[in-house]
Amino acid sequence: MKILISGFDPFGGEKINPAYEAVKLLPDSIKGAEIVKLEIPTVFHKAAEVLEEKVKEVDPDVILCIGQAGGRYGVTPERVAINVDDARIPDNEQKQPIDVKIKEDGPSAYFSTLPIKSMVEKMKEAKVPSSVSNSAGTFVCNHIMYQILYMIDKKYPQKTGGFIHCPFIPEQVIDKPNQPSMNLSDIARGLEAGIEAIVERDGKEDIKEIGGAIH
Amino acid sequence: MKILISGFDPFGGEKINPAYEAVKLLPDSIKGAEIVKLEIPTVFHKAAEVLEEKVKEVDPDVILCIGQAGGRYGVTPERVAINVDDARIPDNEQKQPIDVKIKEDGPSAYFSTLPIKSMVEKMKEAKVPSSVSNSAGTFVCNHIMYQILYMIDKKYPQKTGGFIHCPFIPEQVIDKPNQPSMNLSDIARGLEAGIEAIVERDGKEDIKEIGGAIH
Amino acid sequence: MKILISGFDPFGGEKINPAYEAVKLLPDSIKGAEIVKLEIPTVFHKAAEVLEEKVKEVDPDVILCIGQAGGRYGVTPERVAINVDDARIPDNEQKQPIDVKIKEDGPSAYFSTLPIKSMVEKMKEAKVPSSVSNSAGTFVCNHIMYQILYMIDKKYPQKTGGFIHCPFIPEQVIDKPNQPSMNLSDIARGLEAGIEAIVERDGKEDIKEIGGAIH
Amino acid sequence: MKILISGFDPFGGEKINPAYEAVKLLPDSIKGAEIVKLEIPTVFHKAAEVLEEKVKEVDPDVILCIGQAGGRYGVTPERVAINVDDARIPDNEQKQPIDVKIKEDGPSAYFSTLPIKSMVEKMKEAKVPSSVSNSAGTFVCNHIMYQILYMIDKKYPQKTGGFIHCPFIPEQVIDKPNQPSMNLSDIARGLEAGIEAIVERDGKEDIKEIGGAIH
Repeated sequence: MKILISGFDPFGGEKINPAYEAVKLLPDSIKGAEIVKLEIPTVFHKAAEVLEEKVKEVDPDVILCIGQAGGRYGVTPERVAINVDDARIPDNEQKQPIDVKIKEDGPSAYFSTLPIKSMVEKMKEAKVPSSVSNSAGTFVCNHIMYQILYMIDKKYPQKTGGFIHCPFIPEQVIDKPNQPSMNLSDIARGLEAGIEAIVERDGKEDIKEIGGAIH
Repeated sequence: MKILISGFDPFGGEKINPAYEAVKLLPDSIKGAEIVKLEIPTVFHKAAEVLEEKVKEVDPDVILCIGQAGGRYGVTPERVAINVDDARIPDNEQKQPIDVKIKEDGPSAYFSTLPIKSMVEKMKEAKVPSSVSNSAGTFVCNHIMYQILYMIDKKYPQKTGGFIHCPFIPEQVIDKPNQPSMNLSDIARGLEAGIEAIVERDGKEDIKEIGGAIH
Repeated sequence: MKILISGFDPFGGEKINPAYEAVKLLPDSIKGAEIVKLEIPTVFHKAAEVLEEKVKEVDPDVILCIGQAGGRYGVTPERVAINVDDARIPDNEQKQPIDVKIKEDGPSAYFSTLPIKSMVEKMKEAKVPSSVSNSAGTFVCNHIMYQILYMIDKKYPQKTGGFIHCPFIPEQVIDKPNQPSMNLSDIARGLEAGIEAIVERDGKEDIKEIGGAIH
Repeated sequence: MKILISGFDPFGGEKINPAYEAVKLLPDSIKGAEIVKLEIPTVFHKAAEVLEEKVKEVDPDVILCIGQAGGRYGVTPERVAINVDDARIPDNEQKQPIDVKIKEDGPSAYFSTLPIKSMVEKMKEAKVPSSVSNSAGTFVCNHIMYQILYMIDKKYPQKTGGFIHCPFIPEQVIDKPNQPSMNLSDIARGLEAGIEAIVERDGKEDIKEIGGAIH
């Protein structure tokens, strides 16, 4: 089994992006699965092009992307990506689409094809705060998750894919009072636990655990 | 123009549901549009049956539903409903579906067909805190929003529809420390402003305003 | 019984100070007590001078001051004022003392001599979110509370005094996402309930109710 | 220079108290100062007795206590302890004093005699989120801080003392959604940086840095 894990470069005025820093801390093999790492640009559409190049090159079984979500308290597998770009801030090439479809011929949304409930359970067993997230936002993170699942839907139906959001790390919140953060090594442990769940549930249905949101 | 506005009965241990209490405060006519009010049960599927009965009876142009979202700081029009029921708590008939599709033949998601950016703008002009929400959760609120838009998609393509979430009201948070709340009259003012936007934008595209979420 | 209630003018870039706006909504008599209102400047020391002028003029039994505390979820009687000015922002005359004693000959702190637990109880009975606060900060609010109690301690031992902090009102948080707020009429109702408790407990000890903070 | 650092045993239903776990991670010598560690019971008055026994035994120059403050986002030196016990929950011997003075003959409050602004600055330089706190609550943490400073005031005027509050650690918030946490090693690094500031500022005044709270 081969897992391609991408993470974004820094954006929104931050100097580092803990998402890719955490990816770099991952081992090259998890539960027997080979881990291939890739940094992608925080740019609408271009992120997907760079990612697809790598998909063609390494032909992974799983396409996973990791992003930063300042304000979150835990590591959060995303349930769904929606077919809209609605940027609150410009991306790293100063593009700022407002209410534009990502793919004209795509469905309104794609659900993650990764076992998100199992991933959350494994992360919690590893003592890393975690929960399912029901919105990946409307910026480049939601965009790449949608693009991954569109790519799989249209061209690579054998592969699975999804997205995980991570909190700020402590050094990012030194001057942001009352913002939660998580140590980079804890984020990496959470990601590793999540990937273990992906490997273990391969070919099986996700577990039926409570993990929804009331609103 | 005729607008059907439904709101849920109380759930989750709360004695009142401010959503429908606020609906009751609305005038019978807003900017010339007739307002028809309906209380619906907080029960998966049954909520949709009760609502569709009323749709058949009054034949509204707009189908809007209002729900409570404890923890929110403002009145929040929802952008999208997803095709999944994943209940954290039982509904009012003790049903608790986990990761079940709402409609087997439905798309993965429906976007609101109401002018959500205009609605937020109007609410803010009325001095009511407001923002676009990108997740209606996975409980009965998301369920009814999906059902409304499925119903419109399949049977009533001339109608438009959507959902608005409201905060707790002060009396609900007396024993819930550090939970935001909003006065019922402010919620009602927010809803009225949102409905004004619906009437004013009738037949037009929504405004292109910044209002997305980074994650 | 005569109660002097002061409130600050706007500060910190805000256009209005809901504290004094709420004071203005109070009736001129509460449970038989005469209510005298006074706006004071958000300026270290000067606030106390203006207040003491009024104390001399009207000779109140109770000296109460109301201030704004953006970020709070309820109306919060303060337990204690400490003998330090430590300004995070300049006051309205651009003074910004850092770690300076308010009164060289004053004690390290003064406890409110108002029945704060009874006040919280009354506010909650009136369905207004409320709790005891254990810190009035280190800006002009803590300063005036300390000055009131110093004044009473040194010159007017027959009088009682204290301070109540109020949340933002909705119009102040329109462009501050995820900040709690409270309708001005609810703040005024909370203040009125608190004042009722002051009148009713006159000459008696405060109630022994749970209301402390673990940290 | 000798520094006695105490930390509480678990309380309030928690299985561990990260405060003392972090203390255990500290080296035995920091910037040349000897570090003596002590676990104390989360019990009103008894905590102080156990602590004073140790003070007599090791005769430290600095008496520092570390406690847990669930809900905090950073490591927070406390500015002041107030002369009141007001327990929201029972202590570990089921005592729950309500609005009782800690010391009948003590002043209303004691300010920390440690350089709290320097400590915060050093912690931030070490990339550990930190800020001055203006309330240690009204439970056993405030109690022991008050007792330390009373002890110093009455018997050991050559010594200095104070208190630092720490956040939850990640494993404590696995089932507490939206509660901030901090890795134990980061808490320990923060404490070490704070102690470095204590050693470096020994015999000097604290720095005059902005660090107050508006309310």
